[in-house]
Amino acid sequence: MIRLYYAPGGCSRAPHIALEEAGADFEAVRLDFQRGEQRGPEYLAINPKGRVPALVTDQGLLTECVAILAWIAQSWPQARLAPLDDPWAFAQVQSFNAFLASSVHVAYAHVSRPGRYADGADAAAAMLAKAPEALGGFFALIEAQLADGRPFVHGDGFTISDPYLFVMTGWVFGRSLVDPKAVPRVASHHARISERPAVIRVLAREASEA
Amino acid sequence: MIRLYYAPGGCSRAPHIALEEAGADFEAVRLDFQRGEQRGPEYLAINPKGRVPALVTDQGLLTECVAILAWIAQSWPQARLAPLDDPWAFAQVQSFNAFLASSVHVAYAHVSRPGRYADGADAAAAMLAKAPEALGGFFALIEAQLADGRPFVHGDGFTISDPYLFVMTGWVFGRSLVDPKAVPRVASHHARISERPAVIRVLAREASEA
Repeated sequence: MIRLYYAPGGCSRAPHIALEEAGADFEAVRLDFQRGEQRGPEYLAINPKGRVPALVTDQGLLTECVAILAWIAQSWPQARLAPLDDPWAFAQVQSFNAFLASSVHVAYAHVSRPGRYADGADAAAAMLAKAPEALGGFFALIEAQLADGRPFVHGDGFTISDPYLFVMTGWVFGRSLVDPKAVPRVASHHARISERPAVIRVLAREASEA
Repeated sequence: MIRLYYAPGGCSRAPHIALEEAGADFEAVRLDFQRGEQRGPEYLAINPKGRVPALVTDQGLLTECVAILAWIAQSWPQARLAPLDDPWAFAQVQSFNAFLASSVHVAYAHVSRPGRYADGADAAAAMLAKAPEALGGFFALIEAQLADGRPFVHGDGFTISDPYLFVMTGWVFGRSLVDPKAVPRVASHHARISERPAVIRVLAREASEA
């Protein structure tokens, strides 16, 4: 039994896509963040962090996108979602994903969830004002890292970095925090990933009635 | 050739300790953050992120603590710094480290480097005011995760999570952002790790003249 707790539009979309790409047999359990379900006693008993994604298997609970994505890649090796036999190449995948988690996602969260970092409307406004600068710098680094003419983050093969970047670009393009024209390779990557059947399935599931 | 770029007191201390624990042959290269060396053209040519840690090997550059620590564990398997043969247990190590990187380190950085997230003294004060609440919640989760009577984060064996937690606790205890009395297992862990020969060597190197 594998159960993925997710919130529509959340970063849980990345492991959700990875599970689909892996051909995993899993149950996707939606949480309603509008109603604060992630902070309710029922969910906190499952995941004390009160966040998504959370993956529950027969072995227990696993949290944090970076760890869940790597575990999916290791658990379905035939899906080739990471270069499992090359520690250096695997480390580059982990490095890319860790950067998304601790720099890109965090910078975006200052816009989407300012109360996580400071209280008050003035502080929220100051954080909102800073976000485009921070995110612009981060996406310039990502743009430079994407090789011209190669379809995926790490080259010719789809990896667990691709759905994760796809989620982040969806966020920052969606709120006009980064201009797609400033990062054409990232924008092209986003369009390419959006057309994958696994991605289409996940977006349809997220959009369906609860 | 392995070269670790570090800043005294920075989170680079975690992979620095891990390399010592692994018995690796490496060169530690100090950056002077007071003089802004991490933003100078020489270092940016090595690591465009302008941060530490950065690991340079014959294969290239590797950044992000979470990825560097895992790579060290995989590259010196005889040091047993992670449960490499058990994907679920390995994922738990990665999850713990990812939480330190994207929640704990980030919350602390709002105190140590507020300008990363917002400009102005008022915003900095608001972020400083929020940090103890955020960090208190994170360390309560960590305290609950540490098993009573077992010496290390993941139980009886030292792993790459131990030096990383050690660095974070040093930060938050040092600035009185978390009260050690509120997290006795974490405090005991900190004292235990501080006595390891590898840790003593790294702290001495950081404290020595440049």
